[in-house]
Amino acid sequence: MKEAPHDASLSTAIRRFVIVGHNARTDGEFNLKDIPGTSGRLDVLARCVTAGLLLSNGIRKDTLVYLLLRGLPGPAKALRFEGKHVKNLNPDERSSSSLIQNALRIPVSPGGWLQAGPGIDVALAERPLFDKEFGGLRRIVMAEDGESIGNVSLRNAVMILGGHTDLIEEDVGLLGSEGATRVSLGSRSLHADHCVTVAHHIMDSKVG
Amino acid sequence: MKEAPHDASLSTAIRRFVIVGHNARTDGEFNLKDIPGTSGRLDVLARCVTAGLLLSNGIRKDTLVYLLLRGLPGPAKALRFEGKHVKNLNPDERSSSSLIQNALRIPVSPGGWLQAGPGIDVALAERPLFDKEFGGLRRIVMAEDGESIGNVSLRNAVMILGGHTDLIEEDVGLLGSEGATRVSLGSRSLHADHCVTVAHHIMDSKVG
Repeated sequence: MKEAPHDASLSTAIRRFVIVGHNARTDGEFNLKDIPGTSGRLDVLARCVTAGLLLSNGIRKDTLVYLLLRGLPGPAKALRFEGKHVKNLNPDERSSSSLIQNALRIPVSPGGWLQAGPGIDVALAERPLFDKEFGGLRRIVMAEDGESIGNVSLRNAVMILGGHTDLIEEDVGLLGSEGATRVSLGSRSLHADHCVTVAHHIMDSKVG
Repeated sequence: MKEAPHDASLSTAIRRFVIVGHNARTDGEFNLKDIPGTSGRLDVLARCVTAGLLLSNGIRKDTLVYLLLRGLPGPAKALRFEGKHVKNLNPDERSSSSLIQNALRIPVSPGGWLQAGPGIDVALAERPLFDKEFGGLRRIVMAEDGESIGNVSLRNAVMILGGHTDLIEEDVGLLGSEGATRVSLGSRSLHADHCVTVAHHIMDSKVG
């Protein structure tokens, strides 16, 4: 298994989403016929990957989606989906869950990302990994009690979301989000994948 | 099978989405293990139902989602999901596809909606059905070449989307959308379910 390449061309215009799955299984041992019931709600994360990366006619090449999986059996793992390089990503949930499953079955050890497929990398989830990955970028946490997203610059930032539960202290420690800006998308409480879609829409609107 | 109740309390503040599936099978004979490959892309429609009706902590009781299925074996069918009454709707695609499948297996004949389950109705898709359902409401078609959604009132309207293909003349005839306003969500071409999510966000923002 070769080490994942470091892409030096990643500029600050890149959009980055991190979705935390507190119960998401780390070993890929779940049943594709019952993803919500057997994977620790990896279905939520799978929908976030497609919401983050897919356009109707292609891929958002300017976007990276990270999943932080903190369920059984552990230790916690991170997955990275890079729009610029990802292939075989289809909009249906079973297909993206299958990509996640395959990546989780790769043995990992401390020290960095391993390539699991085109544009898909896996790693042990450790603070140094995220420090290196997000160094110099502001952390923005999506939270219902946060500041209106319209008032916050989303550039040079990582957007962090809970999957189907709120973030807890251990997440903050791993992701280095101690001083994060809390940002709200509006008055309604949305599913994580719908938050990703809305955040993209807002950034698309600002660009043009 | 009892006739679906007519809900006289439906006010003009209700949000209505219609998603057209040109290839979507009308008989429910598809495999839940391979929804995209066997159902005529009913997976797209299933995601639109959850994008239309689900909040993180509940259901959008002010929303109706209609699916227009025009694939094999025919004749075309319509499904109606009413947020106010729907039950057992989970966010995962397999679960919502299964609700669709069960509804499509109910024999229908001309004349109106039949109840397929709580808040889920099925009918033969005919012009009089939609004329009655949408009488007096403006038709808005989501289209990339349309007017910016920010400039268009979305009240007293039905929002119509193609599933994974654009609308064609037969759709216009069925839905009575001859004089529809064409509306664009922005510069990027989005999947239908993402369009529903963004449209909701825009309406949520206008409300408060």
